[in-house]
Amino acid sequence: MSLIVQKYGGSSVADAEGLKRVAKRIVETKKAGHEVVVVVSAMGDTTDNLLDLAEQVVPIPSGRELDMLLSAGERISMALLAMSIKSLGVEARSYTGSQAGMITDAQHGSARIVDVTPRRVREALDEGAIAIVAGFQGYNRGTGDITTLGRGGSDTTAVALAAALNADVCEIYTDVDGVFTADPRVVKSAHKIDRITSEEMLELAAAGAKVLYIRAVEYARRHGVLLHVRSSFNNNEGTLVVNPTEGENVEEPIITGVAADLSQAKVTVVGVPDIPGKAARLFTIVAKTGANIDMIVQNSSTASGLTDISFTLPKSDAQTAMTALTAEQAEVGFTSLQHDDQIGKLSVVGAGMRSSAGVTAKLFTALYESGINIEMISTSEIRISVITRADTINDAVRIVHTAFDLDADEEAVVHGGTGR
Amino acid sequence: MSLIVQKYGGSSVADAEGLKRVAKRIVETKKAGHEVVVVVSAMGDTTDNLLDLAEQVVPIPSGRELDMLLSAGERISMALLAMSIKSLGVEARSYTGSQAGMITDAQHGSARIVDVTPRRVREALDEGAIAIVAGFQGYNRGTGDITTLGRGGSDTTAVALAAALNADVCEIYTDVDGVFTADPRVVKSAHKIDRITSEEMLELAAAGAKVLYIRAVEYARRHGVLLHVRSSFNNNEGTLVVNPTEGENVEEPIITGVAADLSQAKVTVVGVPDIPGKAARLFTIVAKTGANIDMIVQNSSTASGLTDISFTLPKSDAQTAMTALTAEQAEVGFTSLQHDDQIGKLSVVGAGMRSSAGVTAKLFTALYESGINIEMISTSEIRISVITRADTINDAVRIVHTAFDLDADEEAVVHGGTGR
Repeated sequence: MSLIVQKYGGSSVADAEGLKRVAKRIVETKKAGHEVVVVVSAMGDTTDNLLDLAEQVVPIPSGRELDMLLSAGERISMALLAMSIKSLGVEARSYTGSQAGMITDAQHGSARIVDVTPRRVREALDEGAIAIVAGFQGYNRGTGDITTLGRGGSDTTAVALAAALNADVCEIYTDVDGVFTADPRVVKSAHKIDRITSEEMLELAAAGAKVLYIRAVEYARRHGVLLHVRSSFNNNEGTLVVNPTEGENVEEPIITGVAADLSQAKVTVVGVPDIPGKAARLFTIVAKTGANIDMIVQNSSTASGLTDISFTLPKSDAQTAMTALTAEQAEVGFTSLQHDDQIGKLSVVGAGMRSSAGVTAKLFTALYESGINIEMISTSEIRISVITRADTINDAVRIVHTAFDLDADEEAVVHGGTGR
Repeated sequence: MSLIVQKYGGSSVADAEGLKRVAKRIVETKKAGHEVVVVVSAMGDTTDNLLDLAEQVVPIPSGRELDMLLSAGERISMALLAMSIKSLGVEARSYTGSQAGMITDAQHGSARIVDVTPRRVREALDEGAIAIVAGFQGYNRGTGDITTLGRGGSDTTAVALAAALNADVCEIYTDVDGVFTADPRVVKSAHKIDRITSEEMLELAAAGAKVLYIRAVEYARRHGVLLHVRSSFNNNEGTLVVNPTEGENVEEPIITGVAADLSQAKVTVVGVPDIPGKAARLFTIVAKTGANIDMIVQNSSTASGLTDISFTLPKSDAQTAMTALTAEQAEVGFTSLQHDDQIGKLSVVGAGMRSSAGVTAKLFTALYESGINIEMISTSEIRISVITRADTINDAVRIVHTAFDLDADEEAVVHGGTGR
């Protein structure tokens, strides 16, 4: 008998039909002889609708009250899911984050898990019941208040529960068959990856692959939780995210996957005096705004002793960063600011890159031969990322996918929704 | 400084505008120098929509899970209300039934309050904040599960909190100006009652007046809570429901109000042998179904030694009762069953009735002169109820209201909604 944690996102339980389909699947797992804990997100658009309501009442809602409001979403989906399972003749009980022992810090809207004490979940399992747990939410012991974990929070709930309950596997259900070598909506010949290391998965997630959230992968890696990303629409094996400390010594492919990210913008600071300390001063100003700088490029100095510095950051952070820079323009002494939100970031990820030369050359050649211009470059040990124009990013992904021999023979099957 | 508990029903907070209007009113009470605890119901149709969802998933949902589901409704309204108050510059914190210490038995869907420990509510008040508490919900200590209090539960929450916090008054906000001598939607000349005893209020509520729920009035009476039923649309004084043990010795009007109830049906058991024990057997069978019998009439025996017995009960209980009777037809030995759901019950209530003769005669005369037939009669110390045809009930109420000199000079102002 295994203990399996299953996580279903909002698109899997968007309506009564979805709930019933998922309930049937959960009961099948239970009847196969396993202990089952289910983590569920709010149904379909519930969270967005609640946010809309809050906006109608007040422009900037209190964090405590926004968390109280949003936590109603999972309460609805989990109660309905438990009812649906019980109607199939199997005992099921729903638990809020607080009842399931998801203890967090007091950072409303993006709380971090500090402890997991799933006593009631364990009791439910011991009594032969299926435990349904609200994703995305927890509570703070000091204040006694409800908190939420932020984007991708339900994935994190599932992984944290799997770790605390010492589960055999944490299954993340989505609307695609697993993690793909590229977004199958863009690259028709993308194929499912059977096994991926958590290190590679982290790089792919950070590079814009949306199938798993970074925080959940990090948590799984730290606690040795085996992740299985699979489709809620069929029974195919999905992608296993294995922990490198446990991983077998199989031959690692040079490139595991290609990811694209259109969420970043580029800011160029024009005419910065090319003297020591100026660049440091500039990035200190931006860092103070809380903006997350990704790539940086500094042009060579002109005859006049001035240089241009470009950096990328999330689109949503760009305006704040530029306002902060403008406020300090006199002190730093630059000429002007340029803003460009039409960029795309392409990344190739692969653990085999470490021991393999020529990856960069192959990437650049493929893009060059297709007439795609590279504007910025950054690398990690197992990743290379380049900035191109946003409108060429899908072409670039297809070209690179082919260049690294990732194309499958058959087209991938894609279901609707985003799997969040 | 007074401690005021205010209860707002779903129609008062049906949308963002309603929430903002109510928030403004709460802040005014606070700024007038009072401590304020607010009990709020789910917004508008939220509860009905959640019930619809449950019905789509499963025909008869589990009580535990239905309570978990429905409790999401107040979570939404209370969080939005707290946000709205905070945006007006006054500190407010929302609390679930469980956080507010509403401890109940484990009877899902109709839980009874067994203890109220509003420690966090008291702390919020001590820190100068307004406490917003979810109506209708509590939790059971033994199981740790969320419960709901059933119909009118938010009124009960408000009264129970007022009792536990030793509040000066519990204000029940609705969409009419208070308790009226008759339903102002039916009787244009109905007038607001300034003071009513809890005994009279109980009889009116039991007789079909919908402005307050019986349970809340009972709880208030038992714990000596002063109720103030008033409109959320103006600042008029409403109706004070005073506790008789505290009441002054004012002259009591003979008739305080007239109520109508269209929720009952009549069942007639035809051809029952008129021998001792048959009627008792019959009502034992009905009682076992849990049906709440109200009035009973037995016709005089015929020459053949058979009699007809009629009784009234809630429409929703009629079918179950008839099925149970039919199953025992051979044993009891009656001829047939008749079902009539076109009846209406009219009641006149007044504490002065005790010491005043001729009320029954006046009531019967008024109805007789208007050609309205009386089918059944029942009385308590301070109430007389009669059954008439459903389609004449509104005429009957108007006639009786006039006959007992209750008509006001001006028409009552009625707002939309039901004030639940």
